[in-house]
Amino acid sequence: MGMTFEKKGKKEMLNSVLAGINPLNKDSMKKTQDRIDSLIKPPGSLGQLEELMVQLSGITGETFPKLEDKRIIVMASDHGVYEEGVAPNPQEITAIQTPNFARGVTGVCALAKQSKATVTIVDIGVKGTISHPGVLKRKIRHGTDNMAKGPAMTYKEAVRSIEIGIEIAEKAIEDGAKILGIGEMGISNTTASTAILSVLGNLPPTEIVGIGAGLPKNRLPHKAQVIQKSIDLNQPDPLDPVDVLAKVGGFELGGMTGVIIGAARNRVPVVIDGFISYASTLIALRLSPQIKDYLIPSHQSAEQGSQKALSLLDLNPMFDLGLRLGEGSGAAIAFNFIDAALSMNQEMITFEEAKIIL
Amino acid sequence: MGMTFEKKGKKEMLNSVLAGINPLNKDSMKKTQDRIDSLIKPPGSLGQLEELMVQLSGITGETFPKLEDKRIIVMASDHGVYEEGVAPNPQEITAIQTPNFARGVTGVCALAKQSKATVTIVDIGVKGTISHPGVLKRKIRHGTDNMAKGPAMTYKEAVRSIEIGIEIAEKAIEDGAKILGIGEMGISNTTASTAILSVLGNLPPTEIVGIGAGLPKNRLPHKAQVIQKSIDLNQPDPLDPVDVLAKVGGFELGGMTGVIIGAARNRVPVVIDGFISYASTLIALRLSPQIKDYLIPSHQSAEQGSQKALSLLDLNPMFDLGLRLGEGSGAAIAFNFIDAALSMNQEMITFEEAKIIL
Repeated sequence: MGMTFEKKGKKEMLNSVLAGINPLNKDSMKKTQDRIDSLIKPPGSLGQLEELMVQLSGITGETFPKLEDKRIIVMASDHGVYEEGVAPNPQEITAIQTPNFARGVTGVCALAKQSKATVTIVDIGVKGTISHPGVLKRKIRHGTDNMAKGPAMTYKEAVRSIEIGIEIAEKAIEDGAKILGIGEMGISNTTASTAILSVLGNLPPTEIVGIGAGLPKNRLPHKAQVIQKSIDLNQPDPLDPVDVLAKVGGFELGGMTGVIIGAARNRVPVVIDGFISYASTLIALRLSPQIKDYLIPSHQSAEQGSQKALSLLDLNPMFDLGLRLGEGSGAAIAFNFIDAALSMNQEMITFEEAKIIL
Repeated sequence: MGMTFEKKGKKEMLNSVLAGINPLNKDSMKKTQDRIDSLIKPPGSLGQLEELMVQLSGITGETFPKLEDKRIIVMASDHGVYEEGVAPNPQEITAIQTPNFARGVTGVCALAKQSKATVTIVDIGVKGTISHPGVLKRKIRHGTDNMAKGPAMTYKEAVRSIEIGIEIAEKAIEDGAKILGIGEMGISNTTASTAILSVLGNLPPTEIVGIGAGLPKNRLPHKAQVIQKSIDLNQPDPLDPVDVLAKVGGFELGGMTGVIIGAARNRVPVVIDGFISYASTLIALRLSPQIKDYLIPSHQSAEQGSQKALSLLDLNPMFDLGLRLGEGSGAAIAFNFIDAALSMNQEMITFEEAKIIL
């Protein structure tokens, strides 16, 4: 299971973290499933909420886990491919918007406030200097190179982006985080995500390309063409997800992959977000299929290729609100479902407790 | 718009309430839409959450409504058709389970606790005497008659069940409720709901019949047959929803219809639940199409006929967790989406406030 990449000089840390991802606790899962089956309701009638509770129990090893400390880690970065005209907005939006996460005024911040989660914003490669003290400074460099003209980044930088994500996840967990969510900010990052999904999923870009933040529909063929050109030029190896990340990915995409790995390594559930996070998640799963057990899907993104991406991940999203904001907005909303599952488990009584004999 | 039923002796109260349902406040909706469009995100990128916020604004007439007092009204009742062998559980479960809502230990109670809503349980027709002081006593009688042998109830009783729902909704609103949800408890009530949807939607029962609380699949043809027989025998008039409710419905179904009407009449949003609530909602919409504006869908139920029922209602559910518990469990979860929409509206800043000029 998983890959090791020794040939290509993958760092020690990443290898050892991947090796440390363990299966779920089957005993806890069985105990929790038995209790759920004994609650005063028809068996299975709370559907995915029951499955979620069993999974949370398997991850944490507890039958009544407490997951109050919820954190969304948002990775911000820029993309050289922006200059190909694949995005509707100025590239500067990434740098302008990044401190707004620290100010608590973006979409994900508003939604996280509702679901009682905190938001951590990380500059992992924004073009421009971010001075706000609330932004974690982990800049690899000022945006990737234009993948339509050469690799977006080096292999080493790709590994580095994943390691930054792992490090930040582990720090959050050390600080008390019990459940993580992932999010991102980066003008042009649906282009990079589509490229990754295209290579790893063996799907032509034309089949999964979407409008992202609002590209006019008549520009979609151009966006697909830029992605196809980047793949043809760089020839990423579909059997090496880090190579794919390096050649047609982005720093924030690697960062999110790292957060997922760091969570799984520490037996912490991680909630994924929308389309861009699907790409990061697919990289993580290709690095270690064991990670699947730790993933909690949130929503089906409105981005065109979402259904196909979710099939690749073999994940069944819990809701569909037609969201296409990214930032971790869907993950923030999904925390409510986690709390709902915990409440079901905690507050309902069993048939025996109710003395209903069926 | 809507119907009046004077010929059939419909009560004054119901007529006047239906006449008092007004359109949404377009000014508030426009103001809220304009503000949402100016928030720091791509226009429309928060999808259905944005539409929900505009709707809430149109219902309440406020741009920043406060909807903290959330209440789910659960109607409990029994069904004479139980004796035809259409349910997997003993009929006594209705009477045994009803006080458990007052004790706060059923599924909807656990989920409502998470979304900070309260649950009101109403005995509108449970077979047996419910003595728990927390159960509102509005029993019409001890369960309906067996619709496979004659009408489930009289036309007058059907009107009464709706009026009880209106009365309870209005009392809750008077007490401070700002948003309502509907739920039910009643062994055999998917049978009655399927019959209502079949008549009002002109769909053969075989197309929409489902397992309810867990009927073995090989019993589905029998369940469909009982429903078809009841329709053939009683000949409910599809143009008169109250006649349909009387002949093949149930007291709790009328009660939920009444809660919907009472909410709409008082400009209070009402969140619907799963399959059984779809039937009550369809009755309400046939009584007054204007009611649509006040409805908030929650989830797509796992019950077989859900998609067809939702098409009849022309409602787009927000989530799908494979729930088939009823009780208002989906409505309880959906309150989180209401809070998320309010938080988006309240906490995000505009481009102008952020001084981002696009």
